[in-house]
Amino acid sequence: MTSSAAIDNVLAQVDSGLERSLERLFELLRIKSISTDPAYAGECRKAADWLAAELTELGFAASARPTPGHPVVVAHGPEQAGPHVLFYAHYDVQPVDPLDLWDTDPFAPVIREKDGHKIIVARGASDDKGQMLTFIEACRAWKTATGALPLRISLLLEGEEESGGKNLPPFMREHAEELRADIALVCDTDMWDRQTPSITTMLRGLVAEEVEIAAADKDLHSGMFGNAAHNPNQVLAGIIASLRAPDGSVTLPGFYDDVAEIGPELKAQWEGLGFDEQAFLGAVGLSVPAGEAGRSVLEMLWARPTCEINGMSGGYTGDGFKTVIPARASAKISFRLVSGQDPDKIRAAFRTHVESLLPADCTVKFTPHGGSPAITVPADGIHLRRALSGLTAEWGRQAVITGSGGSIPVVGEFKSILDLDTLLIGFAQVDDQIHSPNEKYDLESFHRGIRSWVRVMGALAE
Amino acid sequence: MTSSAAIDNVLAQVDSGLERSLERLFELLRIKSISTDPAYAGECRKAADWLAAELTELGFAASARPTPGHPVVVAHGPEQAGPHVLFYAHYDVQPVDPLDLWDTDPFAPVIREKDGHKIIVARGASDDKGQMLTFIEACRAWKTATGALPLRISLLLEGEEESGGKNLPPFMREHAEELRADIALVCDTDMWDRQTPSITTMLRGLVAEEVEIAAADKDLHSGMFGNAAHNPNQVLAGIIASLRAPDGSVTLPGFYDDVAEIGPELKAQWEGLGFDEQAFLGAVGLSVPAGEAGRSVLEMLWARPTCEINGMSGGYTGDGFKTVIPARASAKISFRLVSGQDPDKIRAAFRTHVESLLPADCTVKFTPHGGSPAITVPADGIHLRRALSGLTAEWGRQAVITGSGGSIPVVGEFKSILDLDTLLIGFAQVDDQIHSPNEKYDLESFHRGIRSWVRVMGALAE
Repeated sequence: MTSSAAIDNVLAQVDSGLERSLERLFELLRIKSISTDPAYAGECRKAADWLAAELTELGFAASARPTPGHPVVVAHGPEQAGPHVLFYAHYDVQPVDPLDLWDTDPFAPVIREKDGHKIIVARGASDDKGQMLTFIEACRAWKTATGALPLRISLLLEGEEESGGKNLPPFMREHAEELRADIALVCDTDMWDRQTPSITTMLRGLVAEEVEIAAADKDLHSGMFGNAAHNPNQVLAGIIASLRAPDGSVTLPGFYDDVAEIGPELKAQWEGLGFDEQAFLGAVGLSVPAGEAGRSVLEMLWARPTCEINGMSGGYTGDGFKTVIPARASAKISFRLVSGQDPDKIRAAFRTHVESLLPADCTVKFTPHGGSPAITVPADGIHLRRALSGLTAEWGRQAVITGSGGSIPVVGEFKSILDLDTLLIGFAQVDDQIHSPNEKYDLESFHRGIRSWVRVMGALAE
Repeated sequence: MTSSAAIDNVLAQVDSGLERSLERLFELLRIKSISTDPAYAGECRKAADWLAAELTELGFAASARPTPGHPVVVAHGPEQAGPHVLFYAHYDVQPVDPLDLWDTDPFAPVIREKDGHKIIVARGASDDKGQMLTFIEACRAWKTATGALPLRISLLLEGEEESGGKNLPPFMREHAEELRADIALVCDTDMWDRQTPSITTMLRGLVAEEVEIAAADKDLHSGMFGNAAHNPNQVLAGIIASLRAPDGSVTLPGFYDDVAEIGPELKAQWEGLGFDEQAFLGAVGLSVPAGEAGRSVLEMLWARPTCEINGMSGGYTGDGFKTVIPARASAKISFRLVSGQDPDKIRAAFRTHVESLLPADCTVKFTPHGGSPAITVPADGIHLRRALSGLTAEWGRQAVITGSGGSIPVVGEFKSILDLDTLLIGFAQVDDQIHSPNEKYDLESFHRGIRSWVRVMGALAE
């Protein structure tokens, strides 16, 4: 039970404590917790320990738990009345290459001005360290202003979200009892726009696969063997090209079999959002939607599956030129899935398709990099309604319900392993350039994100 | 005028001096003269100075001449009767990656046993340092045994053959007077087989081009933009795939317009060589010829043009996985040309083809990496006949006339700039793995290569 007076005190505490909150965020951003590169394992450990220490200081029973990969931070607040929420975020970040496209050191956070907004620039500023701290700093404000948290809170902070996250599900299974709660909160998504908060209820799934094509047992001279020997670069390019039809659809046999068209109601709601395709594409230097002909960008991103070539490499790629026919060529390929698609089925269809295109003398090696189904969060329920009201109160504008083209596998795991529904509440903006050079988080996202959580906690505790 | 007794003395000198000749080769192989990588410019300089010093010691007027790139070594022997030959070879080598596939340090030459043959293992052992020294050590043997060279000899040793060689033609034009000779000798080719020496009279040309496709102005998150934004990896793969038809032919419009079928006589001579396609492909772990259906491997390599993807790169290619849509993707593509094809015409056709396949929002950047026409050396003439007789005498088997799939642009430049015909005489074997890990040169290629030059010099001087 929380009075609006209490909430006003906590919000005042957020405002007066913002400078220190920023200092803490900068501390965390300086830690190079790139989870996919084994060279940074120590930095991931450091980030986990930093978080455990911060949460302990806030009165949580917190610790960095070992896994076969990077640690998982688990923290429990004191037992009390009201719903028990499990908050999730991740402290690991994406690699920073190409480094030469960054204006500043990705791990030396700075505050800059962009289009009249103050922004925090650093790898992880938005995805997901900045978002994670909006919740932790909201807890701090409650604790400081009222001496207690308004409801029972546990946190689960992982360090492998950007690298397949294969160690979290077993950890969740092993500690299912300890992690039981009434609802999960995840802070890893966007606002609808600068003024409009949103709760995401649809997430695409992901199948990530590495494929390596090999032909000759050694690199060859293209003059001595060119024409007579298969070139893995050529073979791989043919396979990749075959994955998309001229109309932009994915050609994998059966790829769309389990994909349902979105209903007229949802379609109408999305059209009501007034999404500006030109502005969305224009923000990254594009003007014409790619992908499936005849579908809106919003539909393509939220309700249609895709296939993307995330990496491609073969032969000599350094300075100058080398007339070589490489022995191998490889690609990192991912499929974004929508409700109904089975990751295992899609992975199998992909492998069968690739094998069907292999010429004589060529072999293929597949390396899976994680997979998860798309999920849809029930668009009703008291927690969702209360969270929407808290966000609406902070931003003075009706919070909306949206989908997301991204994948947050943990949401599916909360459902399947802990039987938890998830509220996806985030304050990122579409121009945050997450996974790209010059990643940023609006200072306003950080400040009002903290204020938003203060209100959402209060609303959930009512 | 050289007696066969004189030649026997010189050959005896070659045999007794072999150990020292090997020591000198090893000294040169230890120099990391990788011309395509600017980081090794100092090593290229070192190799050039080493050669100038060796040749000066042999009585040549020799020096390493500066160019805008790596130095060119020019050396002139004393004036005397008989034909004046200009010998060409290159002291630069290919990069060594992938380094982990080398059994030994590429720049720490060793002698090992392979299939009952002694082999010299190092980058450049065959291409082209080992071949180059067969000629220089033959000069040394003549000098030591008879006090003089049997004919007038000049040498032109370049350091950019593996990196486009764009500085040599201007150098040749500038010094055309100084480089005038009666015939050019180039040592950069194979023997027909372990027992059969050959002189190559057909060489494919080369057009090397780097192409970079760009779409968005930054890397994108494949969840946030996948389907809606063009993926340069996908676009580039489509372009590359479009270059080859299912029958293995190159699809570039007009690519075969100027390509003549080989005549029945040459076809018959090549069939008489008893080329073993299975052995040729089997040596590199392959079994089925790729390339144009219905043509022999020998024809595909010597008399048909090709298109090879030498390098391909885009997006995240490190450890793990990164769900990115890269802003750019690039490929290094080369075309091997045959007689009649115009490099400029092929390059233009390629660029037009690529531009015709560019989707909206995508841009392309082309970077040329050199080009040269194919050339055919007249298969008669006294120098060729004499050289064949010298080789035949050394190997006790009729030397044959062959083609080569590789490109040696300088041969075309000797013709166009210096009006010189070239005799391509080399002692490499098809399994030398040039441009690949564990490059080697047979000890016999080195030893009998020196002896062969002794006899060829003698024959040319008759």
